[in-house]
Amino acid sequence: MAGLDACIEETMKRKTTKAAAPELLWASRVTTPLDPVALAFSSSIAIDKRLYREDIVGSIAHAASLAASGIITARDAARITRGLKTIEREIREGTFTFRTEQEDIHTAIEQRLTVLIGAAAGKLHAGRSRNDQVAVDERLFLRSAIAALRLLIRATQEALLRQADRYRDLIIPGYTHLQHAQPVLAAHYLLAWMEMLERDSTRLEDCAKRMDVSPLGAAAFAGTPLPIDTARTARALDFAGPFANSIDAVSDRDHIVEFTAACATLMMHISRFAEDLVVWSTAEFGIVDCGDAFTTGSSIMPHKRNPDIAELLRGRTGRAYGALMSILTVMKGVPLTYSRDMQEDKQPMFDAYDTAQESLSVFVRLVRAMSFNAERAEILLEKNYITATEIADYLVGRGVAFRQAHRITGAIVAHVAARGIPLRALSLKEFKNFSPKFDAAIFSVLDPRSSVQRKRSAGSTAPQEVQAQITRWKKKLR
Amino acid sequence: MAGLDACIEETMKRKTTKAAAPELLWASRVTTPLDPVALAFSSSIAIDKRLYREDIVGSIAHAASLAASGIITARDAARITRGLKTIEREIREGTFTFRTEQEDIHTAIEQRLTVLIGAAAGKLHAGRSRNDQVAVDERLFLRSAIAALRLLIRATQEALLRQADRYRDLIIPGYTHLQHAQPVLAAHYLLAWMEMLERDSTRLEDCAKRMDVSPLGAAAFAGTPLPIDTARTARALDFAGPFANSIDAVSDRDHIVEFTAACATLMMHISRFAEDLVVWSTAEFGIVDCGDAFTTGSSIMPHKRNPDIAELLRGRTGRAYGALMSILTVMKGVPLTYSRDMQEDKQPMFDAYDTAQESLSVFVRLVRAMSFNAERAEILLEKNYITATEIADYLVGRGVAFRQAHRITGAIVAHVAARGIPLRALSLKEFKNFSPKFDAAIFSVLDPRSSVQRKRSAGSTAPQEVQAQITRWKKKLR
Amino acid sequence: MAGLDACIEETMKRKTTKAAAPELLWASRVTTPLDPVALAFSSSIAIDKRLYREDIVGSIAHAASLAASGIITARDAARITRGLKTIEREIREGTFTFRTEQEDIHTAIEQRLTVLIGAAAGKLHAGRSRNDQVAVDERLFLRSAIAALRLLIRATQEALLRQADRYRDLIIPGYTHLQHAQPVLAAHYLLAWMEMLERDSTRLEDCAKRMDVSPLGAAAFAGTPLPIDTARTARALDFAGPFANSIDAVSDRDHIVEFTAACATLMMHISRFAEDLVVWSTAEFGIVDCGDAFTTGSSIMPHKRNPDIAELLRGRTGRAYGALMSILTVMKGVPLTYSRDMQEDKQPMFDAYDTAQESLSVFVRLVRAMSFNAERAEILLEKNYITATEIADYLVGRGVAFRQAHRITGAIVAHVAARGIPLRALSLKEFKNFSPKFDAAIFSVLDPRSSVQRKRSAGSTAPQEVQAQITRWKKKLR
Amino acid sequence: MAGLDACIEETMKRKTTKAAAPELLWASRVTTPLDPVALAFSSSIAIDKRLYREDIVGSIAHAASLAASGIITARDAARITRGLKTIEREIREGTFTFRTEQEDIHTAIEQRLTVLIGAAAGKLHAGRSRNDQVAVDERLFLRSAIAALRLLIRATQEALLRQADRYRDLIIPGYTHLQHAQPVLAAHYLLAWMEMLERDSTRLEDCAKRMDVSPLGAAAFAGTPLPIDTARTARALDFAGPFANSIDAVSDRDHIVEFTAACATLMMHISRFAEDLVVWSTAEFGIVDCGDAFTTGSSIMPHKRNPDIAELLRGRTGRAYGALMSILTVMKGVPLTYSRDMQEDKQPMFDAYDTAQESLSVFVRLVRAMSFNAERAEILLEKNYITATEIADYLVGRGVAFRQAHRITGAIVAHVAARGIPLRALSLKEFKNFSPKFDAAIFSVLDPRSSVQRKRSAGSTAPQEVQAQITRWKKKLR
Repeated sequence: MAGLDACIEETMKRKTTKAAAPELLWASRVTTPLDPVALAFSSSIAIDKRLYREDIVGSIAHAASLAASGIITARDAARITRGLKTIEREIREGTFTFRTEQEDIHTAIEQRLTVLIGAAAGKLHAGRSRNDQVAVDERLFLRSAIAALRLLIRATQEALLRQADRYRDLIIPGYTHLQHAQPVLAAHYLLAWMEMLERDSTRLEDCAKRMDVSPLGAAAFAGTPLPIDTARTARALDFAGPFANSIDAVSDRDHIVEFTAACATLMMHISRFAEDLVVWSTAEFGIVDCGDAFTTGSSIMPHKRNPDIAELLRGRTGRAYGALMSILTVMKGVPLTYSRDMQEDKQPMFDAYDTAQESLSVFVRLVRAMSFNAERAEILLEKNYITATEIADYLVGRGVAFRQAHRITGAIVAHVAARGIPLRALSLKEFKNFSPKFDAAIFSVLDPRSSVQRKRSAGSTAPQEVQAQITRWKKKLR
Repeated sequence: MAGLDACIEETMKRKTTKAAAPELLWASRVTTPLDPVALAFSSSIAIDKRLYREDIVGSIAHAASLAASGIITARDAARITRGLKTIEREIREGTFTFRTEQEDIHTAIEQRLTVLIGAAAGKLHAGRSRNDQVAVDERLFLRSAIAALRLLIRATQEALLRQADRYRDLIIPGYTHLQHAQPVLAAHYLLAWMEMLERDSTRLEDCAKRMDVSPLGAAAFAGTPLPIDTARTARALDFAGPFANSIDAVSDRDHIVEFTAACATLMMHISRFAEDLVVWSTAEFGIVDCGDAFTTGSSIMPHKRNPDIAELLRGRTGRAYGALMSILTVMKGVPLTYSRDMQEDKQPMFDAYDTAQESLSVFVRLVRAMSFNAERAEILLEKNYITATEIADYLVGRGVAFRQAHRITGAIVAHVAARGIPLRALSLKEFKNFSPKFDAAIFSVLDPRSSVQRKRSAGSTAPQEVQAQITRWKKKLR
Repeated sequence: MAGLDACIEETMKRKTTKAAAPELLWASRVTTPLDPVALAFSSSIAIDKRLYREDIVGSIAHAASLAASGIITARDAARITRGLKTIEREIREGTFTFRTEQEDIHTAIEQRLTVLIGAAAGKLHAGRSRNDQVAVDERLFLRSAIAALRLLIRATQEALLRQADRYRDLIIPGYTHLQHAQPVLAAHYLLAWMEMLERDSTRLEDCAKRMDVSPLGAAAFAGTPLPIDTARTARALDFAGPFANSIDAVSDRDHIVEFTAACATLMMHISRFAEDLVVWSTAEFGIVDCGDAFTTGSSIMPHKRNPDIAELLRGRTGRAYGALMSILTVMKGVPLTYSRDMQEDKQPMFDAYDTAQESLSVFVRLVRAMSFNAERAEILLEKNYITATEIADYLVGRGVAFRQAHRITGAIVAHVAARGIPLRALSLKEFKNFSPKFDAAIFSVLDPRSSVQRKRSAGSTAPQEVQAQITRWKKKLR
Repeated sequence: MAGLDACIEETMKRKTTKAAAPELLWASRVTTPLDPVALAFSSSIAIDKRLYREDIVGSIAHAASLAASGIITARDAARITRGLKTIEREIREGTFTFRTEQEDIHTAIEQRLTVLIGAAAGKLHAGRSRNDQVAVDERLFLRSAIAALRLLIRATQEALLRQADRYRDLIIPGYTHLQHAQPVLAAHYLLAWMEMLERDSTRLEDCAKRMDVSPLGAAAFAGTPLPIDTARTARALDFAGPFANSIDAVSDRDHIVEFTAACATLMMHISRFAEDLVVWSTAEFGIVDCGDAFTTGSSIMPHKRNPDIAELLRGRTGRAYGALMSILTVMKGVPLTYSRDMQEDKQPMFDAYDTAQESLSVFVRLVRAMSFNAERAEILLEKNYITATEIADYLVGRGVAFRQAHRITGAIVAHVAARGIPLRALSLKEFKNFSPKFDAAIFSVLDPRSSVQRKRSAGSTAPQEVQAQITRWKKKLR
C-alpha cells in the first residue's frame, strides 16, 4: 500500500534534518534502536533548538558549580565553557548541523561538545538530568520573553500617551452597545487602554517573579548525591534563588500556563482595540484612520482601503487562546514526576510568545500611525442624542428623582426622534411641556463639550481629569 | 407547528420564575415591550441573584457617598440603607420573590426598594449606572471568592504537612514516565504539592491585588457630573482605591479571566494529584489508600473499591478549563465600552469558583484521609532497579566520566534483568567484570534508604533536606 | 477555624436537597459511609435528574427484554413498568423528592421503585449496570435534543426565506473587511445563512446517525451471562441497532464531543450574524433594525436603543465553546473502560444544548422581526465607490488584461476620492484620460443595480440567480 | 531604545525570507507602501506556501473555464497552464524563491507566472478573487488530508485486527476506575478501539462530503459578470458541484472547524489508548510491552524503559485541542463576508492535520509492535476478586433478586479480603453460610475463563462473540 507509506513518511520528512548515525544519551539499556518513525515523531529538536542559548548559558553555570564544588576540575570547567561558547557561535552563525536523531537540543549540544573537547564533555552531565536542564532553559527563555513583551507594552503605552496628548481636546462619541452613549474625550478613550496594558504588564511581571527559581540541582527529580551548591548556580544565572523541592522543580509547568494565560489576556485586549479600529474606520463611522501604511487594497476591488492589520490582530487572538488550551490539556492529569507528555509544553510557550511579540510589534506602530478624524467626529456628535443623559442629570440637579428624570428624558428623545430633529432644535417652551423644571440653562447642557466639561468625578472624561491622567502617566513612563 | 412552540417555550420555562407585570429600568424610550422569549433569554436574574449581598453592600456605600456629597439627604440615605438591609434579609431568608422580567438582580432590588421606601428609592441610582454597579458587585464577589479559596488551599497545605510529618521516614518509589526511577521519601513527594499550592495561592493573591479597585463613580463609562467622592466610596467598600479611568473601570473583565485562569491552573494541579492517587491505589500498585470514606463500590460488581472521588477531581478539571475558554471567548473582539455580551461573564466566574471551591473542599479531606501502604512500598522497591542511578553516581565519584558510568550501569541492569534477579544479587566479582572501580562499598549504595540518604543537594529528598522543608513550612503555616 | 468550615459547607449546601438515610446501590463491600462532603461532591442528582424520562423509558425497555428472555416473569415486568410510569408522573408533576444521598437519578428511581412495588424492583438491574444505563439515557437525550435543534434551525431557515422573499429587490452594500465592496441583494445576503444553517443541521443529523446505537446489554462493559436480546431492546427504544462491542458501548463519549462541537459551530455562525446586526443597526450604518421587541434601553442613558439580544447571542458563543473544551478535557487521557471522570460529561452536554436551544429560540424570532432600511441602504450605496470593480470588469470585457484594468481603476478611484466626488460625476472625457477603451456604456455600469444585474455566474447575487435560490429553498422547506 | 527595536525586528526576521521590491496585487489605490513590520506581520507566505500544489491545480482549472467560456483564448489558457506547471515543478524541486513581500502563495505564483509568460498571466485573475481562490485551495487540501488520515486509520484498524486475532484466547483483567472489574479477552479490548476509530473515520468522511463544493466563481463574494461555468470548474476539480450562494462560498470556514474537531476527537481516543499503554506497561501492571523500538531510556537513570511514544501521543492531544480552540476563536463574531482575521485559519488547519497524521503514523506502528504479557495477565487475574460479579449472576440464575445477590457477594468478598485469601479458597460449606442457594457449580464460576465463556449477550466478551467481531471486521477491511 504505497499510499500509506507516503502518509507515514510525511512525518519523517517534516522532521528530519540530516540523516546520521544516532547516539542517544540513554542508549545503554534499551539496545534496539528506536523505530525510525517514532524517532522522527519524538524528536523535539526542530522546536527546542530555539533554546540553544539558554541551554548553553545554563550548562556554563552548571559547569562552574561542578568545579566550585570540586566535582570536576577548574581546567575541565574551562574547557567545557570554551567548547560551549564555540557551539553557541556556531549555532548563531548557522554553521551548526542539527540532526533529527539527536532528539533534542541538549543532546545536540552535548554531542558536539564531545567532538570539540573530547572526554571532558562527559563530565558536564554529572549531578544533572535533562529534566532540570530543560526546566532551567524554559525559565531563562520565559524571563527574556517577559522582558521583551514588557518593553513592547511600554512602547505601546508611550505611543498611546502621545496620541492622548495629541487628542486631548477632541471629543468623540462614546459608545455602549456600539450605540451613541455619551461624548468623551478621545484622550480619555486612549488612556483606558493604558490601564489595561499596565495590568497586562504587571501580570507578566508577577509571572516572572513567581517562576524566578533555579531548578538546577534537582537532577531527575530527587536531587543528587553530588555536593552541588544550588544557590551558587541560581546566583550565576541571576535567579532569586534555588528550588525548595526537587520534585516540584522538574514536574510542574504552571509558569508556562501562567505566561500563556497572560499572553491570551493581552491578546484579548488587543482584539477589542482592533475591533474598534475596524468599526471606526468604516466608511459609515469614519472617525479613525489607520494610516495608509497599515491599510491594504483588494486584488479584485480597486477602491478598497481595508484595515487588514487590525483584523489580523483580532484574528491572532485565536492562536494565543489555542496555545493556552494546548498547554492546559498537555498538563491535565499527567502523573508526577516527569512524563514525556511535557515535551509538548514548548510549542504553546513559543506560540504564545510569538503571537504576543509580533502583535505588539505591529500594534505599537499602528497606534503611532492612527489618527482621529475630527470633522467626522463632530458630524456624528451632531446627530443622535448623545447628550440626552445630561438632560436627566440636569433634572436630578433640580430635585427630580433620577427614575422620574430618566422617564421625562426618554419622552423628549422619542418626541424629537419622531420628528427627525436634534435635541437643541426644541424651544424652551417645548422643554417645559415635559417638565416645569427646565430653564434656559438647558441649552448649554446639550452641547457635547459642555457634557464633557460638566463631569466631576475623579477618573472621568472631564478635561481636567483627563489631563491629570496624562500627567500621571508622563511621570510614570518617564 | 406545535413541536416548535414547545422547543421555544423550553427557554422560557427554564428561566421564568414567576410572571408579573414588568417595569424595566430603561422602559422610557423603547415603548414596545421586549419579546417574551427575548426577555427570558436576556434575563440574567437566575444567575446573578447570587450577587445580591454584594449588590446591596455596594448600594449602601453608594448611598452614603451621595449623602456625603450632598446629592441626597442624610435622611434619604438612611431610609435607603434600612430598605436595602431589609431586602438583604428577605433574600437571605428566602422570602423574596424573584421574577424573570426583572432582568437582573439590580432591578429586582431597586424595584423592591421602591415598594419598601417609596420615591426615595429613585434617588439611589443618581451618579451610577448598572455598568459600574455590576462591576463593583463582581469585584466584591471575587474578593470573597479568592479569600475562601486561599483559606481552603491553606487547609490543604496543613493537611499535606501533617501527612508529610507522618511519613517522614517512609521511602516510596519515585516515578518518571510511571516507571520506577529513584527512591524518595513519601514526605518529599507530599511537600512538592505544597509548593504548587503555594503558587496557586499567590496567583490568586496577585489577582486580588490587581483588581482591588472600586469602579463606583464611573457611571455608564464617562463618569458623572455629580460631585461623587469616588475615593470615599472605595474606602467604604475597603478597596485600595478608586478607578483611574472611568472607561476602563466598566469595560474590562481581565480580572475574571485572571481569576478563572488561576482556578484552571489549580485544577490542573489537583488533576495530577488525582491521577497519582488513582494509579497508586490500583491493586497493582497498592501503595496508597484513599480511605473507605473516599472510596465507592459498584452497582454490579460487588468487590470493587473505586477511587471515585479522585477520579471526579480529575474530571472536574474540564469544568474549570471550559469556564476559562468561555470567558475568553465572550471577551474576544467585543467593542468598547460596555456591550451586553459581557453579561455572559458571570456563569464562567461562578463555574470557576464553584469548581475550585468544591474540589478543594473535598480534596482537603481526601488528603487527610489518605494513607501510604508501607509494606507494599517496600515490596515495590525491592523489585526493579530503582537504585541503578546510584551505581552511576558511585562510579562518577570514583572518577569515571558520567556518560561512561551511565553506559556501564546500563549494561549491569541489562545483565540482571535478563537473569531476573535484583541488583544486590550480584557478587562483587561480577560487579568488577563491568568496571574495576567497584569495591565492597557498592552494596550499601544499592539500598533505597542509602540512596535517599546519600542525596546532598538542597531541596533534595535527603532526610535532613526534607526535614528542613517541613520545619520551614511549619513556621510558615503557623 | 470557623471560616474554613463555612467554605467547605458551601459545597454541601449547594448540592444537598433533603437529608435522609442513604442506601446506595453499591454499599455492600465498602462499609464505611462516604464522607459527607465527598457525597455532596460526587452526587450528580442535581444535574442528571434531568434525564429521568430517558432513564425510565430505558428501564421499561430493559424490563421488557428481561421478560422476553425469561429472566423475569411477565408479571414482574408489568409491575416494574407500572411502577416506573408512576414515578415518571411523580417527577413530572413535582411530587417526587430528590435527595443528594441518592447519588444519581438511577438510584433515586430504583429506590422509589422498591418502595412502590417491593422486591420485584430488585430484579430490574439484572444484566445491566449503571454504565450501560447512563449511556442509553444520554443517547436518548441527545436524540431528542438533536431533533429539537433541527426543528428550530428549520424554523429559522423559514424565517430567513420569508425575509429573503421580502427583500428580493433591495440592494445593500456588500462588505469585506467591513468596507464597501460590491452591491448585493439583501436576499442574497440572507440566503447565505440558509446554507450555513443547513450544514449545521446536517452536522447534527450525522451525529444522530452515528450514535444511533443501543448500549443496553453491555452491562458494566463485558456483557452479561444472562440471555438478553440486545437487538430487541434496541428496537424497543427505536435505535438502529445494538452495540457491536460492549467495552466501546460504555466507554466512549465521542458522540457528546461531536454534538457539542456541532453546537459550538452553530453558535459561531450565530455570533457572526449577531455581529452584523450589531454593526448594521448602529446610528452610523443604520441599514438594519432589530425591532423594538428585540431592542433595549439604558438605565442611565434615556435615548439608547441597544441591540442587546444580538449582543447576547454573540456572547453566548462563549458558553458553547466552553462546553466543548470541557468535555474534551474530561475525556483526555482517561483510562478504559469506565472512569468516574465521565460523570462530568453531562454538564457540558446540557450546557451545549441549552445554549443552542435558547439561542435559536430567540434567534428565529429576531430574524422574523428584523427589517432593512431601504432608504439608508440607498444613501450608503451612493457614497463610496462600491461599483469600482465594475469598471475593471468593463475594461476586461474590452480586452484589457485584468491586472492592467485593476490598476487603471485604482487610479480613477484615487482621482475622485481626492476630489470628494462620486464616480458617476466624471465625464466620459475624463474617463478616457485613464483609458481609451471607455465609452458611454461606462455610466450604466456605475449603477449598483446594474452591477447586481450584470452578474452572470451561478449562485451569484444576480436577481435571477437569487430567485433561483429562493425557489429551490421554497421547494426544499415545503 | 535599542532593546525595543530588537524586539520588533524579531517579527521581521522570523517571517522574512528574502528582501526585494514588492509589487502587491492591490497596490493601485493605496499608494503608501505597507509598513515593513506590518508587511512581515501580515504576510502569510511562510505558512500558506504549503498550499502551492492546490493553488496551481485550482488555477489551471480556472484557466480552462475561462477559455471554455471564451473569456480568454485557448492559446492563453495553454500558456498559463504550461507556466503554472513549470512553477509547480520549481517549488517542488526547491528552486523557487519565496519572498515575504509577496504576501501569500497566490501572489507569489502569479508574479512568477508574469515573469514566465508575460502579459497573459494578467488574464488569469479575471472572474476570480483571492477570496474564492484560497477557499478552493483549502478545500482541496482538506480533501487530501482527510483521505490520508482515513488511510492511516484503516491501517491502524488492520494492525488492531491482527493483534486481536493474535490474542483471541488471552484473558486479561478488565478495568473500571483502574480497578479489577471483570475478565475480558484481550481481543475484545482491542476491538473496542476498532469501533472508535471507525467512527473517527466516518466523521472525517462526513466532513469531506459536506465540504465537497467548489467555491470558484464566487469571486470576491458577489459572483462575477463574466460568464464562467462554475459547474464545469467544479467537475474539473472533482467536486460534487459548485457553490449555491457566492457569499457563503467565501465567508465560512465551518469545514475547517469540523475537520479540526474530528482530529481533536481522534486524538482524544488515542490519548486514552496511550494512557492504558503507559499504565499497563508499568513494572506494577506489566501486562503490556510497547516493544523496544517504542521505548526509550533515561539520560541519568540507566535502568529506565520509558513508554515515551505513548506519552507523547497522549501529550499531543493538547495541540489538536489548541488548534480547535484557535479556529473557533478566529471565527467568533467576525462580520461577513470576508475579513482578514480568516487568514488565521490555516495554522490551526495544518496543526490539526499534522498532529493527527504524525500521531497515526506512529500509532499504527506502535500497535503493530505492542504485545501482551500472558504470564503477567494470569498472575493479576489470580489475585483480587475479578469474578465476584459471577457469584452475583450465579445467584440471580438461582432466583435471588439482583440487589440481594449483590449484597451477599459483597459480604463474601469482604470475608475473604479480610483473610487475604482468593475466592476459590472458600469451601462449599462456607459459601452456603452466605446463602443456601450455592452448590458445587459455584467453583467453575470463579474461573476467569469460565466467566468470559459464560457471557451470552451479543457484542460481549464471550469467545464466540469476539470471534464474530473479528470475522465481521475481516470482511469489512478486506
